[in-house]
Amino acid sequence: MAGIRKKDRRDLVVIECAPGTRAAAVFTQNRFCAAPVLVAREHLGVAQPRALVVNTGYANAGTGEPGRLDAVACCEELAQRIGVHRTEVLPFSTGVIGERFPLERITAGLAGCIETLDERGWAAAANGIMTTDTLPKGSSMRGHVGGATVTVTGIAKGSGMIYPNMATMLCFVATDASVGQPALDALVRSAALATFNRITVDGDTSTNDSCVLLSTGRAGNSPVERPEGAAYQALSELVTRVFMDLAQSVIRDAEGATKFITIEVCGGRNENECLEVAQTIAHSPLVKTAFFASDPNWGRILAAVGRARIERLDVGSVSIDLNGVRIVRGGARATEYTEEQGQAVMAEAEITLRVDLGAGSASARLWTSDLSHEYVRINAEYRS
Amino acid sequence: MAGIRKKDRRDLVVIECAPGTRAAAVFTQNRFCAAPVLVAREHLGVAQPRALVVNTGYANAGTGEPGRLDAVACCEELAQRIGVHRTEVLPFSTGVIGERFPLERITAGLAGCIETLDERGWAAAANGIMTTDTLPKGSSMRGHVGGATVTVTGIAKGSGMIYPNMATMLCFVATDASVGQPALDALVRSAALATFNRITVDGDTSTNDSCVLLSTGRAGNSPVERPEGAAYQALSELVTRVFMDLAQSVIRDAEGATKFITIEVCGGRNENECLEVAQTIAHSPLVKTAFFASDPNWGRILAAVGRARIERLDVGSVSIDLNGVRIVRGGARATEYTEEQGQAVMAEAEITLRVDLGAGSASARLWTSDLSHEYVRINAEYRS
Repeated sequence: MAGIRKKDRRDLVVIECAPGTRAAAVFTQNRFCAAPVLVAREHLGVAQPRALVVNTGYANAGTGEPGRLDAVACCEELAQRIGVHRTEVLPFSTGVIGERFPLERITAGLAGCIETLDERGWAAAANGIMTTDTLPKGSSMRGHVGGATVTVTGIAKGSGMIYPNMATMLCFVATDASVGQPALDALVRSAALATFNRITVDGDTSTNDSCVLLSTGRAGNSPVERPEGAAYQALSELVTRVFMDLAQSVIRDAEGATKFITIEVCGGRNENECLEVAQTIAHSPLVKTAFFASDPNWGRILAAVGRARIERLDVGSVSIDLNGVRIVRGGARATEYTEEQGQAVMAEAEITLRVDLGAGSASARLWTSDLSHEYVRINAEYRS
Repeated sequence: MAGIRKKDRRDLVVIECAPGTRAAAVFTQNRFCAAPVLVAREHLGVAQPRALVVNTGYANAGTGEPGRLDAVACCEELAQRIGVHRTEVLPFSTGVIGERFPLERITAGLAGCIETLDERGWAAAANGIMTTDTLPKGSSMRGHVGGATVTVTGIAKGSGMIYPNMATMLCFVATDASVGQPALDALVRSAALATFNRITVDGDTSTNDSCVLLSTGRAGNSPVERPEGAAYQALSELVTRVFMDLAQSVIRDAEGATKFITIEVCGGRNENECLEVAQTIAHSPLVKTAFFASDPNWGRILAAVGRARIERLDVGSVSIDLNGVRIVRGGARATEYTEEQGQAVMAEAEITLRVDLGAGSASARLWTSDLSHEYVRINAEYRS
């Protein structure tokens, strides 16, 4: 506990990696990426990590060159204490954007983190990286890969400013499987694409999104060197399940969320078109408030589909279902649909909204939350 | 008053056009455009209008072929009563999407509307087309065009589901200037582009947006036939000022709005790039809640700029001002900026946010509102 922003709250986490650990990572596509993202990318380019250091409270983004030097200094400080090189430490930050990083308070907290390092420390770490999260997020799964039982375990944080778009909020996943660098790089990319890149709370891509996959190679499996073959597939499924579990727990804990909404768009000409429609629905404040109100105001969904930036839309072919109840057929209200059915579906806590564009065979899915009073309260009060 | 949706509320408006009136219009780009939009487009293609009929309560969108027939029947009914052809009537609707139109109640209300037709009825009409609007919106200006004094007067409605994108919410503007069809078409397009297409409340483009410019030709000016020359310029400025006045009054009355925000993005390589950045900021729920909270949380603005879908962004060249206070320079906090300055600026009711991309000489402006508890309340309760 470094007392970085709020007292009596875990706010600094050190993750130590066993010697020989390999890492692969994806980062935010926000051009104003944070100083720790720049430094982590640079360090990953020259060394495999021996430790990760994560602080909450300050994002260390929009802080220019002084912020970059702070992130480097933080790595240097931890490196000296555990006897590794500075580039073997990866820094991660989350919190308010634009304010200078309290370097001294952070480095002062490192000793306590190092003392309490524990192989069973995942839960404490999941707590330590939380900001507006109300619940810690962790997942662990076992499977058979290359003749051995391997474990994949990870933690994530995130609740608002969530629209990872090629990366994620902070997420750290480790496996004991032996994995070659090309396979590890492919794993983190493909798993993030299918999971973290398919969730959105508010459409706001963070400056600090980082997702790291570590492999210690202790499981005794035949090494998975390249992104192909049965062993790679088995591991990929396992890693993707853990990522999905973490990504969906971000949505379940989304700021102010009262609903967990799956948006499936099918019948598109290509996946991008389906994704564009799904995102337009997911980011519509009117659709989100209708979900919050449990109001089957499906006209708002129709309007969102109609304004999506896609090449062509044959409105007469569009159908819309909510939890299997057909609401729209041929672009207009389905004749058998009743308002009572809509109300019953909208009252549920988990809702699958399915849009069929009726134009092709491509599809895409994403997960999102509703827009509530609580979302506004949290984001109007945060930082104050 | 037709008692369409709520009792004791004006909900049906008839606008009669003098013989010889010319019209030009732009409509929503939402592919699920409403039945009245389809019918108005069709009628405009074959005749000049002698009357406009506007109902609130029901959007008559997502209603398929039956909805189209309802809109046609409504035109036919009014046409018979005032002795014109059906195609000389343009229909407009606003309200809930997806529900059938109460045709009988609407046609029953027409007689009352016709009885109370009045050249000085603009204010009553502005009231009659309101939905979640809290204030009627009207504007009137005079100027000299082609040797005569001409007047441009208009009304608009709109408060939520506002992101017109090539059109507007309902807007009816008339001038007594004599204007040829090519010039009238150019006028409505260019004025809408600079005004209604530059406002956004929630990014949700409506299915019913319609903006009509009428010219009665009674002012005695030399006719403005083509979109060129001094007289056209003078008229264009006048029309654009009325449009801008109406567009900005939509933002001032935006659902739950507590702030009127002008976003200026300059220093871009082209106008589209500037517009994309401005829209990304304007649609960020985090930026909007920070404005609501009067919190100078400029990191959220920085993050929105950084995630805008533009080709290139040199983050080291970006600067950000709020009401003239420089907050960000060279992509990081300006050294002279103090939190107190930021708080003082954010406490104001009208805020100009200026982003300089430092990459070129193009610029774009738009107007938006904040995201408040009241926005969520209105949209969670509307329709219920």
